[in-house]
Amino acid sequence: MSNPKVLARLRAVLPAASVLTGEHAVRPFETDGLTAIRETPWVVVLPETVDQVRAVLAICREHRVAVVTRGAGTGLSGGARPLKDGVLLTLTKMNRIKEVDLDACTATLEPGVTNLAISEAVREHGLYYAPDPSSQLACSIGGNVAENSGGVHCLKYGLTVHNVIGLKVETFEGDELVLGGKTLESPGLDLLAIMMGSEGMLGVVTEVTVKLLPLPVAKTVLLGSFGFLEDAGRAVGAIIAEGIIPAGLEMMDNPSIRAAEDFADAGYPREAAAILLCELDGTAEEVAADARRVQAVLTSHGADVRLATDAADQERLWKGRKAAFPAMGRLAPDYYCMDGTIPRAKLAEVLNGIGELSEEFGLRVANVFHAGDGNLHPLILFDANLPGQLERAEDLGDRILRLCVDAGGTVTGEHGVGVEKLNTMCVQFNDEELTQFHALKGAFDPDGLMNPGKAIPTLARCSELGGMRVHQGRVPHPELERF
Amino acid sequence: MSNPKVLARLRAVLPAASVLTGEHAVRPFETDGLTAIRETPWVVVLPETVDQVRAVLAICREHRVAVVTRGAGTGLSGGARPLKDGVLLTLTKMNRIKEVDLDACTATLEPGVTNLAISEAVREHGLYYAPDPSSQLACSIGGNVAENSGGVHCLKYGLTVHNVIGLKVETFEGDELVLGGKTLESPGLDLLAIMMGSEGMLGVVTEVTVKLLPLPVAKTVLLGSFGFLEDAGRAVGAIIAEGIIPAGLEMMDNPSIRAAEDFADAGYPREAAAILLCELDGTAEEVAADARRVQAVLTSHGADVRLATDAADQERLWKGRKAAFPAMGRLAPDYYCMDGTIPRAKLAEVLNGIGELSEEFGLRVANVFHAGDGNLHPLILFDANLPGQLERAEDLGDRILRLCVDAGGTVTGEHGVGVEKLNTMCVQFNDEELTQFHALKGAFDPDGLMNPGKAIPTLARCSELGGMRVHQGRVPHPELERF
Repeated sequence: MSNPKVLARLRAVLPAASVLTGEHAVRPFETDGLTAIRETPWVVVLPETVDQVRAVLAICREHRVAVVTRGAGTGLSGGARPLKDGVLLTLTKMNRIKEVDLDACTATLEPGVTNLAISEAVREHGLYYAPDPSSQLACSIGGNVAENSGGVHCLKYGLTVHNVIGLKVETFEGDELVLGGKTLESPGLDLLAIMMGSEGMLGVVTEVTVKLLPLPVAKTVLLGSFGFLEDAGRAVGAIIAEGIIPAGLEMMDNPSIRAAEDFADAGYPREAAAILLCELDGTAEEVAADARRVQAVLTSHGADVRLATDAADQERLWKGRKAAFPAMGRLAPDYYCMDGTIPRAKLAEVLNGIGELSEEFGLRVANVFHAGDGNLHPLILFDANLPGQLERAEDLGDRILRLCVDAGGTVTGEHGVGVEKLNTMCVQFNDEELTQFHALKGAFDPDGLMNPGKAIPTLARCSELGGMRVHQGRVPHPELERF
Repeated sequence: MSNPKVLARLRAVLPAASVLTGEHAVRPFETDGLTAIRETPWVVVLPETVDQVRAVLAICREHRVAVVTRGAGTGLSGGARPLKDGVLLTLTKMNRIKEVDLDACTATLEPGVTNLAISEAVREHGLYYAPDPSSQLACSIGGNVAENSGGVHCLKYGLTVHNVIGLKVETFEGDELVLGGKTLESPGLDLLAIMMGSEGMLGVVTEVTVKLLPLPVAKTVLLGSFGFLEDAGRAVGAIIAEGIIPAGLEMMDNPSIRAAEDFADAGYPREAAAILLCELDGTAEEVAADARRVQAVLTSHGADVRLATDAADQERLWKGRKAAFPAMGRLAPDYYCMDGTIPRAKLAEVLNGIGELSEEFGLRVANVFHAGDGNLHPLILFDANLPGQLERAEDLGDRILRLCVDAGGTVTGEHGVGVEKLNTMCVQFNDEELTQFHALKGAFDPDGLMNPGKAIPTLARCSELGGMRVHQGRVPHPELERF
């Protein structure tokens, strides 16, 4: 696409350095964290103020040009994939912390502020922002809102939706919505909640107010090592049933343990079928009491238990978990990271099912995941250079997500739908539910020019897939031509 | 209205005892907890199953009859006011507890289950359902969803939206939506959240899945007595700023203290300008440690502090707070209960403002409220038999809510909008935001036959009020002809 009139108008309202065109300049924006899916954006704009955002939207509205909003580009489901005839509205330059209110324990931020920068800015006051996606060094709070991001600590402290209390949103139609604020409750329909995880389809978030929490006084980490995967799965449910909500409760299976140990020397038992890492935080007394109870639960489920000796030891135990994804490179040239969620009580059952599927497909699957909230991240290991392996990995991934849905779970835990999971959305939702999603989208963006083609599949697509599914027994990913 | 054909069809799909007509039979349904606003419903139906709900909606859809859904009728903003030509769909007969899942710590309920019945059913397992509106003995979980109800403990444990994880909803158009479930996150737009506080405008909730929490091991109650109201207000912010989230943090001013003490003999200091009641829960060590810290904060803000000696003493301290509303009968024949919310940091300022307004209007205002989350319940005392007093009370109420909005707060904390706050919604939201509310409502109920006329004012109404407001300096409540 080339529309010189629109370009000229964009250049008139933005600084020269904020309007990028030409292959060289726009190439860094071709993809987000789901690098298999690429597109060259027609133009990338980087506004610095809300007025500039509003001006860009007004131009796009008048000329019927579609807009894709992008934060730091760390998303894992292709939600920020650009359009070759659309504007890529990148908000990274809007990265000021506008206010820290110590009485209300809130921070008000521009959307481009990185997740970690929030906690760093308020640490001196003994506060922090709880959701911590593993990309927290890079990912932006605006992107966190768009994907309703989680992280290791969301079991205890919730997802983005539980920690954001106010938003300013510009709609494609030119309205500014002020949603929520510094109070717990707001009257009227909950527009604030509907924005969380809406993947840029409803409006452009230009300001975010988040809750800040007091830094925990004390914490500890326990490592439980299991001879049987199922025991680890059951221990997770048993800890929660004890009435303990750990700050983090992560599980790794044997392939993950070995890969992480080789990579990070975290002190994990290489022969264990599975380990659980359990972080507890609170007052010193609470942490000590809970640690004793968790230890008892782990032991009664057949685990050997080790309590971190000090802060450095805690960090070492976490280091392996954090290195698990990069460490997969040692096991196979490629991996495909799934993101299903299941009820905690079904952990053992679904892990067994994944094991059986892995056998059936002849592909190894490593499991590293947020066990406490049932958010699985099976990593399907394959070699894209071997003919047919990518397709087989995709098929296996689809079967795993269906296993999650059948167990009462969902096709995405924290990575969003984007373009990657459009087809599996057809498995999760029926036509009536999808129709309701489209109606809601239409209530914000009647012409469908905000991030079109993402997050909600058309009924036609699902119906077509339904037919294919019957014939082929799988949900294909047409966008994933090459992973 | 009399539509014999619709009546005959309703009688064909429901048991005879589930279709009520005639003044005598429907009179108990004329009003909800906002008794000033009455209407005689044309017909009251009481389905016992989801199929019956679906059949009723189908009949109403075909004949273009409006539906008002009602739970236990304890709402305080007239959200369940019936229509004289509509069907009042009452869900109290659907009151079965369908499942308690001890692994997932959830309960799945029909909408008519009372709030307290949930906690009673799971107490033997050491669990409870956290939100506890003061009507919890009578109010239903379906009504809690419709109003996004809070309660004394929502400071620490959140509102209904934070404690409900799954819903089944029948839409007016005949679709069933399955929203959320037993997992933390669900893909797609957050239809679950949008249902919370939607006051029966989007669909009929036929099943609710709630989170259950472990009963706290230990708790205690502190009573802080202050010589100055402002000190109590500031102490609230200081406790939270300490990083302590009390299970409950309630404030009463001198008129409330005296009325409650006369009524309930709770051991409150009758001369204090204000008291704070602070409940702490958790492990025994945590409670003891937090109690010491709260005591220090209260003392440093000029309070005399008393720690409850045992469980009976805790109960006695709470008894006064719980009796505060009925006790108001000793101060004046009538009271008008407001429900504004403000940022915690503005407590002292807004309380002073309310005091000044009380002087200006010559009406006493007693304050009993959820201080921790800034949810004010000013009670305007008046005598409806004295000419002009009701109008003056309404005017004062309106000024108080505006004070809340000006302080960055909202016109309702936990009682909802219903018909009572339609006009103050015009103060809270601008035309763009209201248009967005209407668009969203239209996405669920295009013909506007679900609880029409509630919760979201029309733009015309607000614009008319805008004019009146300029001339008269107040937002009138046309529905409140007689309080």
